[in-house]
Order: sequence, then C-alpha cells, then structure tokens
Amino acid sequence: MAPVAAATGWRLLLVLSAAGLGAAGAPQPPNILLLLMDDMGWGDLGIYGEPSRETPNLDRMAAEGMLFPSFYSANPLCSPSRAALLTGRLPIRNGFYTTNRHARNAYTPQEIVGGIPDQEHVLPELLKEAGYVSKIVGKWHLGHRPQFHPLKHGFDEWFGSPNCHFGPYDNRARPNIPVYRDWEMVGRYYEEFPINLKTGEANLTQVYLQEALDFIKRQQAAQRPFFLYWAIDATHAPVYASRPFLGTSQRGRYGDAVREIDNSVGKILSLLQDLRISENTFVFFTSDNGAALISAPNQGGSNGPFLCGKQTTFEGGMREPAIAWWPGRIPAGRVSHQLGSIMDLFTTSLSLAGLAPPSDRVIDGLDLLPAMLGGQLTDRPIFYYRGDTLMAVTLGQYKAHFWTWTNSWEEFRQGIDFCPGQNVSGVTTHTQEEHTKLPLIFHLGRDPGERFPLSFASTEYLDVLQRVTPVVQQHQKTLVPGQPQLNVCDRAVMNWAPPGCEKLGKCLTPPESTPKKCSWPH
Amino acid sequence: MAPVAAATGWRLLLVLSAAGLGAAGAPQPPNILLLLMDDMGWGDLGIYGEPSRETPNLDRMAAEGMLFPSFYSANPLCSPSRAALLTGRLPIRNGFYTTNRHARNAYTPQEIVGGIPDQEHVLPELLKEAGYVSKIVGKWHLGHRPQFHPLKHGFDEWFGSPNCHFGPYDNRARPNIPVYRDWEMVGRYYEEFPINLKTGEANLTQVYLQEALDFIKRQQAAQRPFFLYWAIDATHAPVYASRPFLGTSQRGRYGDAVREIDNSVGKILSLLQDLRISENTFVFFTSDNGAALISAPNQGGSNGPFLCGKQTTFEGGMREPAIAWWPGRIPAGRVSHQLGSIMDLFTTSLSLAGLAPPSDRVIDGLDLLPAMLGGQLTDRPIFYYRGDTLMAVTLGQYKAHFWTWTNSWEEFRQGIDFCPGQNVSGVTTHTQEEHTKLPLIFHLGRDPGERFPLSFASTEYLDVLQRVTPVVQQHQKTLVPGQPQLNVCDRAVMNWAPPGCEKLGKCLTPPESTPKKCSWPH
Repeated sequence: MAPVAAATGWRLLLVLSAAGLGAAGAPQPPNILLLLMDDMGWGDLGIYGEPSRETPNLDRMAAEGMLFPSFYSANPLCSPSRAALLTGRLPIRNGFYTTNRHARNAYTPQEIVGGIPDQEHVLPELLKEAGYVSKIVGKWHLGHRPQFHPLKHGFDEWFGSPNCHFGPYDNRARPNIPVYRDWEMVGRYYEEFPINLKTGEANLTQVYLQEALDFIKRQQAAQRPFFLYWAIDATHAPVYASRPFLGTSQRGRYGDAVREIDNSVGKILSLLQDLRISENTFVFFTSDNGAALISAPNQGGSNGPFLCGKQTTFEGGMREPAIAWWPGRIPAGRVSHQLGSIMDLFTTSLSLAGLAPPSDRVIDGLDLLPAMLGGQLTDRPIFYYRGDTLMAVTLGQYKAHFWTWTNSWEEFRQGIDFCPGQNVSGVTTHTQEEHTKLPLIFHLGRDPGERFPLSFASTEYLDVLQRVTPVVQQHQKTLVPGQPQLNVCDRAVMNWAPPGCEKLGKCLTPPESTPKKCSWPH
Repeated sequence: MAPVAAATGWRLLLVLSAAGLGAAGAPQPPNILLLLMDDMGWGDLGIYGEPSRETPNLDRMAAEGMLFPSFYSANPLCSPSRAALLTGRLPIRNGFYTTNRHARNAYTPQEIVGGIPDQEHVLPELLKEAGYVSKIVGKWHLGHRPQFHPLKHGFDEWFGSPNCHFGPYDNRARPNIPVYRDWEMVGRYYEEFPINLKTGEANLTQVYLQEALDFIKRQQAAQRPFFLYWAIDATHAPVYASRPFLGTSQRGRYGDAVREIDNSVGKILSLLQDLRISENTFVFFTSDNGAALISAPNQGGSNGPFLCGKQTTFEGGMREPAIAWWPGRIPAGRVSHQLGSIMDLFTTSLSLAGLAPPSDRVIDGLDLLPAMLGGQLTDRPIFYYRGDTLMAVTLGQYKAHFWTWTNSWEEFRQGIDFCPGQNVSGVTTHTQEEHTKLPLIFHLGRDPGERFPLSFASTEYLDVLQRVTPVVQQHQKTLVPGQPQLNVCDRAVMNWAPPGCEKLGKCLTPPESTPKKCSWPH
C-alpha cells in the first residue's frame, strides 16, 4: 500500500494506546456509520418535503443533526457512485466507467469482468491504520470476482451480496445472486433469501438491521472503533419490505420499503444512544443516486422538485438526501449549504480517524468536518459524469451543462423514460447534444428544476462562463483516467460457483468464456 | 342578516360578559389570525422541502404547530379563493365565477362590475356576534366598488388595496390602484406607495407588518378578541421586498420577498408571545393558490413535486402550504393528513368563536378543530373548479379528473405556459378534454405528481370510480350556483375616484360606461 501521510490528533493517541501507553478509557477516534440507500431520491424523506411524511426517525435524525440540501452522488448510477464513496475519487479516476461508447452509464452486473482495482485505496483499508474494525452490510457492487471481494479490500466482515437483487433466475442461463457471510456465500436470493415479487415481501432489511445492531454491540463490547457501511437495497427495484411494513404506506410498496428503513435507522440510532456511544459515533445518511423514475409510481421514489432521475446528470439523477448526525459534536437542527459529494465521506471518515487522505493520487473528496463542526463553507466544483464524459459542473449556485442527454429516441419510444412527465425543450434531449463551447447554464437557487437556462447574451451568463471555464480546463488538463473496468462482459464470470458453494451443494457449472464488449444502452 | 345558530361554549360566556356578569379576566374566545399569502406555492417553505431553506420562522411555526400537507385552495386563482375563504363556500355558490365561457378562470380586475354579494355571510360579520374586532391588512379582491367595501362586509378596519398591485398606469386609460385606510383611499400604488419594478424595492410588507403589530397591540390592550386577516401580496408578481431583504436570498427576488414575509411572521408570532396571548390566539398560514409558474424563475415560486401551477386544477395549482399554530392547544410538531380546504378556515374560525356556521345555506368548509386538537380525520371531498366547471375531485388518496386543460394552444404558442418543463401526455392538455364518463384517476400517495393515471381496466380504478361517482352526483344534484359576479366588465367602474380622493386631490374622471362581457382567456 502506498504511504498515507499522518495527521495529528486521534492517531497519535492511538499509537500511544497500541503501545500500551494509553490506559483503558483513553479517547478513541469516533465510530463511523455510513447509511447508504439504494435509488432513494432527494424527495423521499418528510424533512425533504415528501407529502406523506412517513419518515419520523430520519426527520428526527435531521432535527438532531445537520441537513445538506445540496449533496451529490458521484454518478447517476450505483456501482460508480459506490466505488467513488469508498475511494474518495471520481469514477473516471478509479476505473468505474466504460469507454465502449460515448457517455454511457455502466455498472457491475454479473457478467462484468472488472471491479475495484488493487491500486485503489479503499476506505476500510486505510481506517485499519487507525485501529478500526470494518463491516459492510448489504450491497458491495464493486465487482464480484474473487479478487474484488470486500474482505480483500479492507473490510473485516461482510453480510450481503455483490450485485443487485434482480431475479429470480433459472440457474442455467443466469445464476441467482449469492448472499455472502464474510468469505463465503451462505445462500442465494430467491432461494435461501426469498423475495416475493408478487407481494413484495422479503425480510432482508430486518436481516441487515440485525447484522448492524450485532456488529455495533460487539465492537462496543470490544472497545474497538468501528466503521460500518450499511448499504441496504430495499428501495431498489424490485422493492421489498417485511410483512409488518407491507401495505402500511400511503405511497404504496416503495413507501413500505422506506418506512421499514426509517424504522431501522431509528433502531440503530437508539442503540447508539442506549450503549452511550452516540457522542462517539459519526453517522451519515445518503443514497447512491437519484430515484429511479422508470420504476415509478409503484417501485420508484421521488426526486422532489428536481429534473429527471437515475441515469441522468440532471439534478434528479445525482442530488441526494444527506443527513449528518453526531450528538454533542455536530450542532442540532442545522442546514449546511456546503456543496457536498458522496466522495467527501471518504475524506471526512479519514479525518475523523485522524488520518490524512492518500497523498500519492488525486482525491476528489473534501473533508466536511469544518462544515459540520464549524459551519464553514468551501468553494468546490461538483462534476457530473456519465461514463467517460463530463456532462456538467456545478459551481456555487450555477450549473453548466456541456452535454445533455436523457436516453435515445429508440429507447424512449419503447417506453423507457428517465424523466416521466418532464420535458424541458433543448435540455431533456433524446440525442446527445454537445454544448462544450457554449454550455447551458442554470441558476439552481432560482431554478432548481433546470427549466430556464440563462440567456447566452446576459452579463450573468458571461460572468459565470468565465468562472466555470478555468475550473473545467484545470480538471480536464490534469485528469488521468483510470483503466476502465466496465468494458468487458463474460457470461463465464457470473456467480456460478462462489466460494462456499460446495458446502451448500449449490455450485453451478459456468459456460465457456466468451468475453465481449458490454453493451451499455444508456 | 340571516339567523346564525348558536353554539355552546365561548358564546355563552360572552353573552354573560356583555351583560356585565363576567368579571374582568373572564375567558375570551381565542383571537384568530389568518396569514394568507399571494401566489405562494406548496414548495416555497423549508419545511416543505424548498432547497434553499430560507424560512426559519415558518419552519419553527410548523415545529411548534401542525402541518397540513394536503391542504387546498378553493380555486386556482386569487379572488374566488379569497371569497371562498371568507364565506366558507365554493366560488360556484358565492358567485365568484364566470359563465362567459366554459371552464374559465376569472377574478376581480379594476374593470369588474361584480363583487361579494350582500347575501353572502362574510366571516367578520359573523364573528361580530361573538364580540370580535376585525381587520383586513392587504389585498381584499372581493370587488372594489363601494358596495363591496370590506367595511360594508363586517371588517372594522382595513389597510390595503382592493386589487392586485399591477402597474404603474398612466391614470388615463387606467388608474393606479388605490390603497385604503378604512373607508378612504390614502394614496395609490406607484405614487404614494412606490414599487420599483426595476430593483424590486417596496416597503409594503413592512407597512403591512406594522399594521398587524399595531392592531394586535391595540386589541390586546382593549381586551377584545380579534380577527386579523393578513392578506399580503409581496409574492404576487411584480414581487417586491424592502431594501434590507433585497438580494439576500439564494432564490433571487422571489426569495427576497419570501424571506421578508418569513421574518415578518416571526415578528408577529413573537409579539403574541411577548404579549402573553399566544395561548389564546389561533394562527393559520396558507396561500390563495399555487405558485405562478408563468412568472418563474425570477418572480414565481415553487409547487414542489406537484404538477403545473396557478390557473390549473392540477395539484400545483391548488395544493397549498398550511400551518396551524396555537401553543398549548394544538400539539407541537404534528402532521395532519386531513384533507383541508381554505374554506375550512371560515368554519373553524366560527367554531373557535363558539358560533355555528349559518344554517340557511350550504357551507363547504369543515371545522378543523377536531383534526387540530384531537387528531381526528374526517372523510370529505375536495372539489377543483375552474370557473363554472367541476374539473376534478379528490377523495381520500384518489383524484379524479373530469376535465383536463392547461391553456389554449394559441396562448401556449405565445409562450404562456402554466406547466413549464412539465408535460404529461393526455393530462396537461391544451384543448379542453372531457373525461366525465371515464375520469382520469390518480393515486396521490404513490403519484403526487399526477403522472401515471390508473388503468381504466384495473380493479382499483373501478373501485374508486364507484366511490367517486355518487359523491359527485350528490354534489351536482344539490348544487345551486350563485349569481355569477365575474361576467361583466366596464372601464367606467375602475378606481377613478375612490372615496377620499377629493382630500388628496387625486380624483380622476371616469370614461363613459360601456359594460361588456369580460374576456377570460384561460
């Protein structure tokens, strides 16, 4: 591993502690708990204006913590966004993109050959240096082949699955997705881990909740600082909830899933308080990308007043709910207008652990502690990529689009619509429109819905362009794209025979290897 | 005045008190303070998810009071909605509609001949019976001719104007709008009451605030229960704010106006607390119709996740922010899913005063006290009218559209767009589409944005239709439309020579009377 520059603070204490110099009860760095939702939208929480107001626990979390109304994922799609969170780097740097076609979203389906490169520093690897025990509960999505296993990248424990819970499959053309405990699979979705597509019933959120509670209790008992990455997926289609929550939401099945998550978050926060570690535990709640409006209204969430959803680089695709909670440290009931990114959770976590970010590479994440603890605001750009292409950038209140695209006319005519009911002429385009010379610019304060581009002739436009241009030029000039990981697909690499399958008698025979370019339609 | 059935409670005490039997300090009915905004949208407050979160006072009001996420105006336009509030009756009953053309929005511009009919019971008239002193601050909008003057309809005091603050006019083709104190005009907009259209500066909200504070102090000193109707108009285009607020919002000029209003509401609530009358004062905050998206992004607000805006019977046109506040009586921090209507403020106010609503006519308003004080939910329909036409009804979570229309193709092609950036095929139609036999039905819980009509063939659709049909039939069978007040226009009736103009030397000579049908384009 490349050297990680030391930072002052906790770390010194830890070194002392490890050397036996610190007595029991010496201050520990805070525990870190990242609650990452799947396809949950900005508008899905009561505190963000969801009309049914069914998230009392998350609303309370915001009332006791800090809300970030301008917080962004690193990509409009799941795998790249998650890779960015755990590496603090844009997908274009960490390899979670494709060059097969221009500006295409890509992720890690079962047939993907790539995954998280060994050269990337994954957050739990680094936190180890500060004595953290790390667990991932839920969806990994950074590659499912053995070399990409989360326990090879710093996590000490895993309960969950490498891919989405799509299915059921016939285990012939395509195997069902495995569920792992640590190194080995313990079953498959739709088999040992049932999801009833008809009723929407699955008890997975309860299982993931239990995993979280157990881990927290064990680490508290062992007096070890922990990093828990709770990456649950009940709000990703096919959405599910356990029986006590089914049919309880005004919002239908999607709302049932949200209610169960809200209830679970309440239980997690309560446990921290009951164990008296809430004041030494940093908790952050957010989502991997915007609500999947193609799954609406029954299986998709809400992006509130924003344009379009998942798969797009409009606000609806990448603006996320975001709540920081750390009683006694982060002041209660505050709103921060800091432009935040999911990649900031990497840098902020390191900062919490008393570690500096790796100095041998570009890190896009910002340390949010000054914003959270001191109300500081830092100017920084938010870059919106779709695959290999920089589609847009936000700087302060202004967003400049260099490319606009929803999806192709061909797909759209088949009913695949990432912006149902929305249509902004010249903006939600169905061909890839280039605006690199003369970007479309919106003021997100006056026009959060990206409906009214500034006039090209206005002084305001020219002023903004002058500020945006050097930021983008600097970014592009210094950019060293990582080796693209999402180009090659091969049916042979699917989850046919994951480790542990022998014990369960659930090994399947892979077909012959036929690697080819993955097809990314949008 | 027609007899008003007596109700138990406060009223008896008042009778005793008036007869000298009640000692000083005998319980008074609560003061009533209605804060009515102009063209403010559902999505304009932080508590409703507005991303800039610039309404700390209103958000606190909600935290200390009760939020109604499903609260509706009685019309997508100002005058009818205000007439409905003050009469507790749909505009189709109280005459605030036109029959000149099918399904047309109408209001009270200067040339309107009609206004509030004498036969209508206006709220302050009725409250007088319970000893209330009533004041209107701001926009009346129920007719500007002498017989329609608010002091002829129960108000004891008025500071404000009869019409919108459009202008400036040349006082030849069209006079500037007068501002009244009580019976007489004290000046005109753009003359004694300047509004700078270029900078957006006007100190009117400060003047209206001062009027409110003074009135409250005077009534408190006199120990008389009061009804204050604070109908300010800073968020109606041309939007304005006073200098200290100009340029302070992330949202531009519209946001400056909202910030000044928020600040003013904070001052009003603080005064109630400082005077120790907050526990005896019922306060309700809402708006007359949805945000005017035609004025966006600089002069129009936000309807959050809802479809279209002002002028339409989609949710964006009629769903309103709504907060009830009565410390010690209404429990703090609650959300009520009661379907509420602006007309309920009539009936609720009477109930607070210990009065029953008039029994000689149909009253559409519901007493919301059981919802506010006891969390009770009452099944009731919300009717969405456009002029003379029932466009839609909401029953529980379901909304059925009998007619859909945004505006004409002709207007739309000229750039008049009530749904900018939104387009739901077959729903946001530019011709008046009839669906009375087979309404378009939406589930507002799953689909608040009215994007996904239920399938006509689904069991759900048929069940809902079966429940909606008798409600609508009953409504239409028993409906006795009032004499339409908004049919005739005449330049001669404009504000040429309002009472008091002589003293100011500001009387203008009216042209000859040429009454004709008002033209209502949408």
